[in-house]
Amino acid sequence: VSAPVIKRVAILATVLVVVGCGAPAIETVPTADPLPSWSDGAPRAAILDFVARVTDANGVDFVAPAERIAVFDNDGTLIVEQPSVVQFEFLYARIRQLSGEHPEWRDSPALRAVMDDDRQALAAMTFRERGELVTKGQANVYQPDFARAVQDFLATGRHSRFGERYVNLVYEPMLELIRLLHANDFRVFVVSGGGIDFIREFSESAYGIARENVIGSSMNSGLKERDGRLEVYRKPGWDSLNAGSFKPLNIQLHIGRRPILAVGNSDGDLDMLRFAHDGMLPSLVLLLKHDDAEREYVYAKEAQRALDAAEQKGWSVVSMRDDFATVFGK
Amino acid sequence: VSAPVIKRVAILATVLVVVGCGAPAIETVPTADPLPSWSDGAPRAAILDFVARVTDANGVDFVAPAERIAVFDNDGTLIVEQPSVVQFEFLYARIRQLSGEHPEWRDSPALRAVMDDDRQALAAMTFRERGELVTKGQANVYQPDFARAVQDFLATGRHSRFGERYVNLVYEPMLELIRLLHANDFRVFVVSGGGIDFIREFSESAYGIARENVIGSSMNSGLKERDGRLEVYRKPGWDSLNAGSFKPLNIQLHIGRRPILAVGNSDGDLDMLRFAHDGMLPSLVLLLKHDDAEREYVYAKEAQRALDAAEQKGWSVVSMRDDFATVFGK
Repeated sequence: VSAPVIKRVAILATVLVVVGCGAPAIETVPTADPLPSWSDGAPRAAILDFVARVTDANGVDFVAPAERIAVFDNDGTLIVEQPSVVQFEFLYARIRQLSGEHPEWRDSPALRAVMDDDRQALAAMTFRERGELVTKGQANVYQPDFARAVQDFLATGRHSRFGERYVNLVYEPMLELIRLLHANDFRVFVVSGGGIDFIREFSESAYGIARENVIGSSMNSGLKERDGRLEVYRKPGWDSLNAGSFKPLNIQLHIGRRPILAVGNSDGDLDMLRFAHDGMLPSLVLLLKHDDAEREYVYAKEAQRALDAAEQKGWSVVSMRDDFATVFGK
Repeated sequence: VSAPVIKRVAILATVLVVVGCGAPAIETVPTADPLPSWSDGAPRAAILDFVARVTDANGVDFVAPAERIAVFDNDGTLIVEQPSVVQFEFLYARIRQLSGEHPEWRDSPALRAVMDDDRQALAAMTFRERGELVTKGQANVYQPDFARAVQDFLATGRHSRFGERYVNLVYEPMLELIRLLHANDFRVFVVSGGGIDFIREFSESAYGIARENVIGSSMNSGLKERDGRLEVYRKPGWDSLNAGSFKPLNIQLHIGRRPILAVGNSDGDLDMLRFAHDGMLPSLVLLLKHDDAEREYVYAKEAQRALDAAEQKGWSVVSMRDDFATVFGK
């Protein structure tokens, strides 16, 4: 074997190792622009600059791969949450489905509102009333049966305005950002106020995020035998309601590290965004602003404190109207 | 370039991709035998057979990479737990260290036992008394300060019999098994009754297991500001005591998938071992038996139900004496 051949072998091997190991879970072809669905502007520039800085082994802002943790809120950050969050639509559909066996449910105003699809009553519902819906729709069921019910809903339910399956209403720019982070050795987590086991049913296929990288609200549970097999059984009551200060606390519980990149869209994300911002490593915080009535929605009613904090702390406010060249994938 | 050379290039490239991508965090040199510290015998054969079957894309027992979840108990499964578990030694050392500022601690029998290093009293301690130690030694402290205290202990504490740092008393055959699993696209988790934040301080360096892949007992916590930064603050009381049925329940919470491989050594692991065994996918369950007085310890007092289950369900009982060619790495 001649010297040039050996050299070519070595180069080939190096290329294969480097390419093969960067992002094993995502099928991405390296292109000149990793963020084609982002318009030119400050947020896009901030993302590209941040990723370049923390991955530059010779730079002062280098962050070791082990420390590259990114967290994304779910509803309104990765996926449409208007006119109501996807999981509520699941809950309503499931309660209607189960209500045939439960004529007594009509005695409850909350359950009656669901059965009659009374959108005004549903929107005005108290926390306690919603808790009753969660118990009826998501508790007292074996975990695998719950998962199947979620899958059935995702395969059949459609968004009231867009007429699309909900998993098609994921923001394309955020998917590009997740892929860019994966390609740069970040571990990416969903940190949602929504149900942990609900989001896991689509996180891998829709986001490319493994089930174990989903953090969310969780219900009480116990072990039960069915046909001689141990199964997880979902019980009434919250184990953890993952919003506000519980987002950083559950990040500590599930990840055990402070994120260096955090993305949210509402006041419920504020503590999580601050938690990333307050670390000793370089950090990037993005706040998505819903200001595009034509392609999505305009709302900010539960984001005012977060928007104020963004201005005060210099976080990147992402305008859906101005910064998203594309909102949804095809 | 002749055909044999091209063939050799292809083989080299394949080897490099497979080895390089399987276990990015572990520096492992490919050898013919991935388990050199395991003696020939039924457990070693069962491991190699299982890994070959679930990774054979053409076989009936193939398991998709996404489903390849392995869980390991910690104390007595990955690391020595005699004469007392490592975390208890940390707790005793820390309480002694803090006791200078707390003369009133001598009024508590439990704290006095620690301060006097009364091993008989420590061994006879009730669950409630131990809870008092945990509160004094591991609560009412900022999370980063707790982490630093653990690091200090790991850098200075030595095992009473072996005279070694505790992180050197990890079972070499189990490290080889973890590497073999990583190289075959398994995600490997520690699932311990020990403290989640304690084990995370050495899981990456000692086991090659990322912090977020550690599941353990957790304490209550809250957010607190220090110098204007949000920090996690550890509070008294358990959030979750990860033993018995809580092991499968916390596997559901943290991973959201049923493991196909589980390794334990005591009755506290029994529900976790059964949870893996009871799944619909092929599974392998290993139970480590401490029967080597010369190189480690002989004990089975809290493993009788697990040993009975192993016999009844056909699990692989790993004899430390017979199946470990090497116990500790150098």
